Amino acid sequence: MTRPPNDPPPFDNPTLVAARADLVRELRRFLPEDAVLIHEEEVRPYECDGLSAYRQLPLLVVLPRTVEEVQRVLRLCHARGVPVVARGAGTGLSGGALPAPDGVLLSLARFTRILDVDPLARTARVQPGVRNLAISEAVRPHGLYYAPDPSSQIACTIGGNVAENSGGVHCLKYGLTVHNVLAIRIVTMDGEILELGGQALDSPGYDLLALFIGSEGLLGVTVEVTVRLLPIPERAQALLAAYDDVTTAAQAVGDIIAAGFIPAGLEMMDGPAIQAAEDFVHAGYPTDAAAILLCELDGTNREVSEQLAAVRDLLLAGGATEVRTARDEAERQRFWQGRKAAFPAIGRCSPDYYCMDGTIPRRRLPEVLRRTAELSDEYGLRVANVFHAGDGNMHPLILYDANQPDELARAEELGGRILELCVAVGGTITGEHGVGIEKLPQMCVQFSPEELSQFAAIKTAFDPEGLLNPGKGIPTPRRCSEYRQLPNRPSPVSSPAP
Amino acid sequence: MTRPPNDPPPFDNPTLVAARADLVRELRRFLPEDAVLIHEEEVRPYECDGLSAYRQLPLLVVLPRTVEEVQRVLRLCHARGVPVVARGAGTGLSGGALPAPDGVLLSLARFTRILDVDPLARTARVQPGVRNLAISEAVRPHGLYYAPDPSSQIACTIGGNVAENSGGVHCLKYGLTVHNVLAIRIVTMDGEILELGGQALDSPGYDLLALFIGSEGLLGVTVEVTVRLLPIPERAQALLAAYDDVTTAAQAVGDIIAAGFIPAGLEMMDGPAIQAAEDFVHAGYPTDAAAILLCELDGTNREVSEQLAAVRDLLLAGGATEVRTARDEAERQRFWQGRKAAFPAIGRCSPDYYCMDGTIPRRRLPEVLRRTAELSDEYGLRVANVFHAGDGNMHPLILYDANQPDELARAEELGGRILELCVAVGGTITGEHGVGIEKLPQMCVQFSPEELSQFAAIKTAFDPEGLLNPGKGIPTPRRCSEYRQLPNRPSPVSSPAP
Repeated sequence: MTRPPNDPPPFDNPTLVAARADLVRELRRFLPEDAVLIHEEEVRPYECDGLSAYRQLPLLVVLPRTVEEVQRVLRLCHARGVPVVARGAGTGLSGGALPAPDGVLLSLARFTRILDVDPLARTARVQPGVRNLAISEAVRPHGLYYAPDPSSQIACTIGGNVAENSGGVHCLKYGLTVHNVLAIRIVTMDGEILELGGQALDSPGYDLLALFIGSEGLLGVTVEVTVRLLPIPERAQALLAAYDDVTTAAQAVGDIIAAGFIPAGLEMMDGPAIQAAEDFVHAGYPTDAAAILLCELDGTNREVSEQLAAVRDLLLAGGATEVRTARDEAERQRFWQGRKAAFPAIGRCSPDYYCMDGTIPRRRLPEVLRRTAELSDEYGLRVANVFHAGDGNMHPLILYDANQPDELARAEELGGRILELCVAVGGTITGEHGVGIEKLPQMCVQFSPEELSQFAAIKTAFDPEGLLNPGKGIPTPRRCSEYRQLPNRPSPVSSPAP
Repeated sequence: MTRPPNDPPPFDNPTLVAARADLVRELRRFLPEDAVLIHEEEVRPYECDGLSAYRQLPLLVVLPRTVEEVQRVLRLCHARGVPVVARGAGTGLSGGALPAPDGVLLSLARFTRILDVDPLARTARVQPGVRNLAISEAVRPHGLYYAPDPSSQIACTIGGNVAENSGGVHCLKYGLTVHNVLAIRIVTMDGEILELGGQALDSPGYDLLALFIGSEGLLGVTVEVTVRLLPIPERAQALLAAYDDVTTAAQAVGDIIAAGFIPAGLEMMDGPAIQAAEDFVHAGYPTDAAAILLCELDGTNREVSEQLAAVRDLLLAGGATEVRTARDEAERQRFWQGRKAAFPAIGRCSPDYYCMDGTIPRRRLPEVLRRTAELSDEYGLRVANVFHAGDGNMHPLILYDANQPDELARAEELGGRILELCVAVGGTITGEHGVGIEKLPQMCVQFSPEELSQFAAIKTAFDPEGLLNPGKGIPTPRRCSEYRQLPNRPSPVSSPAP
């Protein structure tokens, strides 16, 4: 990955300073004082998202409160040709919310209202800045919840979830954001409002809702989201299975699915991840295991009891050294706490880490883990593995020290190799974290030039001037042809033939 | 609805005759004799689809056998500016496969091979001309099936299903085509191949797979489809409930869903539909009922037994005069036979009928049925109701006689009023039959001008010259402004606020 230089703040560039002064004057005509941030210390918190190796100060930050204010901001920027980057909570991991040095950072942080809950239709209409977990908290009195649960769910917003098509532990059974959002209201770069989707199973016209979800802020700004809610299952129960080696654990994942079970969650952690999580949150994990599986079953009491017994037998027959059922709700929560805290836990073991997000066909798990271990040796960098095993979504965490010369560059190269390995076995370069600025080179490996130019045409159909979140998501043809000419690069392949 | 004139065959127009001769010469360079149909009697069978009130002979018909031939046909037509309409089995009900008088009708009828079945991954890769039911038949030895089941499933093709995002009885529980297709290979108007989707839960880049499914042949030609297969449930059981009035039946639909059941099918038929179906296939329906519900439950033996008892109690408590459980598989099949044959059955009672396809929120069913009956009286045309009640997808069938002056026009106007009623209660103008040429005016009611121009931009992103299936799916702004100026037309509304 070629990193863009961490540019000096725009405050030193006379052209940008003039452009900014003009823009600020216009913005203040319709935005209150506290909704336009221009001082370096005010805009500093917006310089990066969760991919903190990349930092860039924006020209300025706006914090509108109403949809009309968002429209006016976008119309103004559209008229002036000023780039706009929208931002939720900034928990994204692929640099999708990295500001443009000559652009406006549009924060949706003030859109925090839950507008409407319809317990009969099982829907909630919320503003984009509402936190993922806040939705489930608000609808709990109705016995409902919102299923997609990214690890960052305590902080990340539904608007950001829409941008990234976020998943989480539960998405194996309940789907990604795209499967749990019924409708969104967006503002296009020229300030128009579009309603995408609706409550019906299908709608006429092109399916712009699915197109928009996961489009990483390149097509429009989400200003309202209608989510589908699910009844809280009567019972949820978690199993923890320990293994002497990673391959046997990976094999068990396939066994469970092949036997017809769709667990509410099916997660895997390898030795380094287990150790780190255990040291951090004391989840009660067996620290001598080479791998553990966490398997959650939910449904009616009877369903869960039956499945629990069957899955337990299957895991023991498949080589688990130990299978533990959470004794009570507190222990179930602890099992998951370890998993959800795995990233920060690993963060404590190493000065820095780099979290990857590839997806592979489940049956290739053992092979990809072996190859990842070989690459880890080759690059001399430790890799811990935490992943949504059930749907083949891997999160290898590469440990490095940014203070060592070239360690970041080596980590990034190793990360790129792992993603290209995912493509080679028929997988994809991102499961749920998006492309952002991080995976632009790998997009050139995942897609053919024809496919990439079709993506570019879609972008043009929404944002002809390319002002929304420029430089993210879709690589330029030039960037791809340069990347493909680098030594040792794989030749471009089309999406995996099914 | 303004009907386009049923143009004279292109064989009488000297300009078209010359254009055709030139095209035929070029096509025959790479297509065998039997793959280019030019004589009037050969092309006549392609003059309409299931919306047979609209007929138009194409310039010529091509029947390629390979993807490369499809690419060459499209490249040639692209170079010459010749429109292309792709066609599967021609069972569509909205005129989506109506030929263009100056264009090529591209039949995918020769793409009938099942290329690959992977029972472990539960996927099948098939050519677009494979019939919907043929997929389930082919994978039955593996204990699998393909869930979406349009009433026309014995004839309609998977390529057509992709174009229309087809549903069916089972889509309440198992989803539409878009939920059961993992990947497609398409050829764009300029002859490029794109792979959309893949086997992973999410994929990087924009979600072009969902965008393409249901795009009614306007964006590209499907040449390969990878479908998801499901395990055949251990048991399926059907209930038939009879009602003295339609409103009580409609209320019961909401009760079942609200109680947390998701039946594999939940269908409703009113008196006229019951009578017609019974006369035709002798399904054993109670012909004195004002409405019946058909409810299918599937799953494990135990699950089905439990749910059956619970749903039965619920239906009786909700005012059913009779609840009958199919005694055996033969009776279950008969219950469904009546439902699946309802359209042709009604066709026997009236010289002609016009099948509508609106979707409404379930809770508005009683009200919409009442209003439909009033409109039926107002227009002096009988309406029979058959519908996928569980997901609010209505199929009112308007009975008329095309030989009576203005009856077709009156039927179409009544149909339009019913669709606009659907929009007014927060529904949509099509559940599964698509827009085609039929519902272009209602698109102007369903969507705002901004939304329609976004659709047009998407079309341009795939087919800048507008050669693929011209005049379908998306109305031009001019057409909409004309329609909106007609007397008694509703003003344009945006998609229903959720």
